[in-house]
Formats: sequence, C-alpha cells, structure tokens
Amino acid sequence: MIITVQKFGGTSVSDEHSRRHVLRHIVREQQSGHSLVVVVSAMGRRGEPYATDTLLDLIKDNGSSLPAREKDLLLSCGELISASVLTSLLNAEGIPAVALTGGQAGIITDAGFGAARILDVQPKAILKHLSEGKVVVVTGFQGRTEDGEITTLGRGGSDTSATALGAALNASVVDIFTDVDGILTADPRIVSDARPLSVVSYEEICNMAYNGAKVIHPRAVEIAMKAGVPVRVRSTFSDGEGTLVTRSEAVRGRPGWTDRTVTGLAHVQGVTQLSVVTEGGPHDLQLRVFRAMAANGISVDLINVMPNAVHYTVKENDASKAIALLRDLGFEPRVRESCAKVSVIGGGMNGEPGVMAKIVEALTNRQIRILQSADSNTTIWVLVSGEDMAGALQALHSEFGLHLAAV
Amino acid sequence: MIITVQKFGGTSVSDEHSRRHVLRHIVREQQSGHSLVVVVSAMGRRGEPYATDTLLDLIKDNGSSLPAREKDLLLSCGELISASVLTSLLNAEGIPAVALTGGQAGIITDAGFGAARILDVQPKAILKHLSEGKVVVVTGFQGRTEDGEITTLGRGGSDTSATALGAALNASVVDIFTDVDGILTADPRIVSDARPLSVVSYEEICNMAYNGAKVIHPRAVEIAMKAGVPVRVRSTFSDGEGTLVTRSEAVRGRPGWTDRTVTGLAHVQGVTQLSVVTEGGPHDLQLRVFRAMAANGISVDLINVMPNAVHYTVKENDASKAIALLRDLGFEPRVRESCAKVSVIGGGMNGEPGVMAKIVEALTNRQIRILQSADSNTTIWVLVSGEDMAGALQALHSEFGLHLAAV
Repeated sequence: MIITVQKFGGTSVSDEHSRRHVLRHIVREQQSGHSLVVVVSAMGRRGEPYATDTLLDLIKDNGSSLPAREKDLLLSCGELISASVLTSLLNAEGIPAVALTGGQAGIITDAGFGAARILDVQPKAILKHLSEGKVVVVTGFQGRTEDGEITTLGRGGSDTSATALGAALNASVVDIFTDVDGILTADPRIVSDARPLSVVSYEEICNMAYNGAKVIHPRAVEIAMKAGVPVRVRSTFSDGEGTLVTRSEAVRGRPGWTDRTVTGLAHVQGVTQLSVVTEGGPHDLQLRVFRAMAANGISVDLINVMPNAVHYTVKENDASKAIALLRDLGFEPRVRESCAKVSVIGGGMNGEPGVMAKIVEALTNRQIRILQSADSNTTIWVLVSGEDMAGALQALHSEFGLHLAAV
Repeated sequence: MIITVQKFGGTSVSDEHSRRHVLRHIVREQQSGHSLVVVVSAMGRRGEPYATDTLLDLIKDNGSSLPAREKDLLLSCGELISASVLTSLLNAEGIPAVALTGGQAGIITDAGFGAARILDVQPKAILKHLSEGKVVVVTGFQGRTEDGEITTLGRGGSDTSATALGAALNASVVDIFTDVDGILTADPRIVSDARPLSVVSYEEICNMAYNGAKVIHPRAVEIAMKAGVPVRVRSTFSDGEGTLVTRSEAVRGRPGWTDRTVTGLAHVQGVTQLSVVTEGGPHDLQLRVFRAMAANGISVDLINVMPNAVHYTVKENDASKAIALLRDLGFEPRVRESCAKVSVIGGGMNGEPGVMAKIVEALTNRQIRILQSADSNTTIWVLVSGEDMAGALQALHSEFGLHLAAV
C-alpha cells in the first residue's frame, strides 16, 4: 500500500469552489492507485464563522478566562466541521470516505493545551480504513492525550499533523496544499520576478520559515526530516508540481538544482535595533542586559556582543518594554526603529567564499546601509532600515540570479 | 455532596444577555451549597452559525451523503462550542468551571449514530471535578461508544443527557431551563388563560410530550422516572419555581394538586384520517392494511378496528403514500384531511366516571363534531377538524377548570 498524505489549508476548504479543487486533487491521487489520508484545517479566515480566530472571538468578551483545556475543546470544532463537510462532499461524489478526529486518528500528544507536542502516532484506525479502500479525512491541528483530553498543536499545527501522519504511515509523500504555487525565491509582492523553486532541502525551508517566509511550519518540516518523508508544497488551485522538500543530499543534482549558492530570500519587518554602550559599567553588565530581557519574556535576535557594547534587535511590540528595562539598569540605549531583517538562505553557501562580499556589493551599489549582520552555515542576515527593505531584497534577488533558479 | 443538574437549552445560551440569566441561576444554586453539573445545548436556532440546524445546512448541498457517523462528529461541535463559551463566562466571573464532552463526562452509548441510546453513565470524571469545587459543564446531546466514537442522542437529546446524569449522580433535582415558565395546562397561543402547573407526574408529562406538547423529551422523563429523580421545568428568564415533575404518589396531596381529574391539554395538527370499508373483502384484509403501512414506514395513530371497517390517522406528509398503498390493496379510502388530535391528559381520570361525558358535552355545546376518539387510563383523545381545534381546546380547558389548576 503506497500512502499519500494531502493537507489542505483553511482557504482550500472554505467554500464550494475551493473544495471542488480539493476534490480534483483527491480524485487524481486515488486514480494513481495510492491510498489517501487527507488532513484539513478549519474553514476560512477570521470573520468566517468556523475559522479558528472567529471561534476565539466568541469568548473574547470574557478576557483570557477560558482555561487552556477548554479553549482547545472550542478550537477543535473548526477542523471537525471542515473534515465533516469534506467527507460529505467525497461521499456525494461516490468516493468512500471517513472522518477521524486527531485523537481517533491516533495522534497522541502531551497535555500542553494550546501548543501540545506530538508524543506518538498510533495509526491503527487509519490503516484499517485505508485497507477498506476509504479516503481517511483527519482533522488537523489536534490530537488527544493518553487520558482522552482533546489538545491542539498551536499555530501551523495542521502542517505538523500532516507530516507526523506521513512519518508514522511511511507515506511516499506529504503534499501541503496552499494558495501559492510552491516555495518562492522571495516574496512576490516585493520581488516581482520571484519564482517557485522546484526543489529545496529540509534545512533550507526551515531557515526560510524561521526567518519570516510564510511557507510551512518549521516543526512540521523537522518531523518530516527526521523520518525522511518528502514534502511537496503546492497550490490547491493549479496542477503544478510545486516545490519538493527533501534531504539536502537528494537536492543536489536534481533538476532544478543549478549548483546554486543561494536558494531564496526571506524577511521580517517591524524590528527595533537596540545598541547599548556598556563600557565603564560593572563587568557583568552585558549579562544583566540579557537576563533582564529573558526574565521579561522578550525575544532577542541578531545579538552582537562586543567588548564595549551590545547590539541586538527586538520585535517592535516589545521595544518600549525593552527600553524601559535598559533604563532601569542605568543604560540609555540607542534605538533604531522600523528596521527589517533580510535573510539570504542557501544550503550551498556553506564554505563558498565571497557570498558576504556579493551581499555588501549589491547593497552598496544601491546605497543601502547595512545596520548589522550575522551569519551561519546556511544563512546570512542583514539588518537594514525598513525603507530599504524592498530595494535590498530586489538587489539580492538579482545579484544571486534567483529569477533563474527554477527549471 | 448534594448534586443539582441544570440543563440550559439553545435559546438560553445563544447570546450574552441570555447567558447572564444562566449565570444567575448557576450562582444561586452554588450559593445554596449544592454541587453543580450544567448541561448545555447548541447555541441558538437555525440561521445562527453554531445551531444544530445550521451545522446541518453546511452539508445540505451534498444531499444525504454524509455518513451518520460523520454527521455526529459535525453536530457535536454545536454543544462543544456552547460549553466552551459558558465555561469561559463562568471563569471570567471567578467561578471555577470545567467543560467536558459527553464522552469525557462518561456518557456511554450504543453506536446508533444520530439517535444513540445511552447504555451507561460512568461519572468518575464529573465526581472528581465536583469534589474540587468546580462547576462541571457537560455538552448535551452527545456521548461516545466504548470504542471512542462520538455519537449524538437525537432530537431532545440534551434533556436526556441531563436526566441520565441526574440519575447516575443521584441528583437531588434536574432543572430543565427553557423559555417558558414551566409546563402549561395548554398551549398559551391558543388558550389564553393557560397556566403553569406547579406539579405533575412523570406519566402525565410523558403523555403530554407524546401528544404534542413541546415540554421535555419523553425519553428524558423515562430515565428520570426509572431513577426516581425529580425534574423541574422552569424558565431561564425568571426566578419562578416552574413545574415539578415527580412520582404520581408524590403528586397527590402536594400544593398545586387540587384533586384534579384533568391535568392539561395537548394537541397535534396536520393529521389525515383514513377510513376503509373492509366488508366483503378477504378475511385478513385489515391485517394487510396495517402490514402495508408498517412495511412502508408509515406511523399510524388513533386506530379503530371495527367488524366492517378500519379508521386510523397518519401524518399529513405520509397521507398520499398511505392512500396509494390502500389503492394497491384494492381499497378506496375515505380521506379527511387537516384534522387535529386533541388530548385530554390527567393521572386522576383513571376510574373517574363521566370524563368522556364532559368532553362530549363541552364540544357539542360548541357545535364541534368529534370525528373519532380513543382513551387510555390517563388520556382521552378526540379527533376534530383542524378548524375546530382552537375552539375544542378552549372549551375543554374551561370545562375542566384548568385555568384554576395552578396555585
């Protein structure tokens, strides 16, 4: 039995028109003789009655007074409804289908309500229904504890459901259907010649996701990576193959791999840079700075510790709190608001000389000032002012020939 | 631990204003020192997004193609949502509360999806939460099979959930909150001086429900009756005591019991009377008539078998099918459309002489023709034309002094 897992996001199941496209993908996969597990998200977006955010709106007048356990009960309905509606459609089309809750599908989690982690997948019920020739529709985003409590997996959870099921079922592929044609070299709203990649490695897509590209949840990729299950990110609304996500060894040499150094660009806006001159203060001042941030739940990024100063970034929302904390410690930070972090990502840049030089050259030629930078084996980050972000992305996209990336 | 079960219907939890009334009843019961289990229905009526009928509308384009099992998954969301919303409100008000699904609450059913029957109630989880001082909010209308399948109990199912929990927990009382002030002597839209009864027996309320009074589901009453748990039917929107439903032995002699012969009136509209002259046909013709009805799923009522004829009623919707079946058997029935069945109900009429005489007199005085009648120990039914129904109800209400019934 060759098993395919298909995951459809909220916009793919939100209306009759979209569900017809979903049906097309299911029928095609069935006709190829594969057994099929379909994971669905809640229908639609905030404002539509059964979307996750709308369900949360039902209790917003009561503040945060719904315990996490009950919030999960409430949220689990979003996927239950869409799974039932899709199963109904499949049966109407003569395709035998069964809907399972996350718990019934054997997704066992810890009791971390709201952001539960999958401990185990026991796919006995799924395998039974597949062996009877049924399409198994599973509610994404949720599982159950060993005690029978209903849990949700947190944001991006349906992707995680899909790859966890794919891993447990040793699926031939996990198809993540979305409203774009795959993973793009950059955000097409900013870089007009951004193109879909035909193949990327698990590591690259994780880096893109962590750095702001809205592609697929990193946790979901990690599960697929550990199990070695290939993932495809593709569009519900077209028949394109989308982007294959697989092991980096398998990426090199495949069509679409053009000995590339850089795979894609990502960006995060709304970043505030803080610089603190620590010279002359007590010897543990830098430590005190980061302890204060951590104790107050402020995430720090792009940390640059130097003998006489520290530079780092925080999210715009956290900036005033961070500044107040620094003042409490006796520092007056230099604050640079509305910055953007641009990430240059590529599994192939490891050990390649001259990548940073190319970045500096491309930005300098456009009179874009680099406010800070950092690098790892597979990613280089540059901080620029928000106004420069689009120009930086365009310059880098062109510099690394990303408009030529796909075949 | 003295336990009260409170059940709130869809209109009681549908909006913030109604939920404030619910809160008032919960707080009052808590302050009296009772432990509290609250059973909720889905929010609102058809048209509102989370009502049972609206959830069904989501799949109406697909015909009846959703398997019963998946339909139950879908419908279970209605109560999950209202239980979560109410639990949120209670917590916001500083009342510790926990929401349990029917399955988590220990309501074990058979696998009769859509109309499952409760096999057992295992209230371990409820008792644990009650002992911790929490209000336990349970989703009505649903349970689970031993295998973990989610089931629904069919229409009126939340009443059944409430009395089944009341029985299993040996509750001191099960309060069924609704939008009327209790059980009325007749439908107040037809009989303007209809009044709430302060006490009725289980048998009487069952008869009223079976005969068309929309009070509480008969199945729910039977469960309470078997366990001897008192039920109160009362209004969410007032502080009235409502109607106590209890054993008939306990009813006599209570305040509100005025040696009454007749307790109340009920009615069913949209009934078609069929009369078939069987004289001269084969000896088993009457048997053939009822076999044909049963084989085609047509419920028959007010059956009157005589040596040379049979009279009976069917629902208006079934009438044309019933007539066609009779013609297939070689009969041309006499058909009387748009009749109404008026029921005169009273645990005290058993063995009382003259009740039927009073009925005939009251109707004759109003020139209302009795098309057919039947009687049991506790109920007398008369069939009248639909146009005569209101007059018959008013005449009988007055004849039996029902406007004086309540104290």
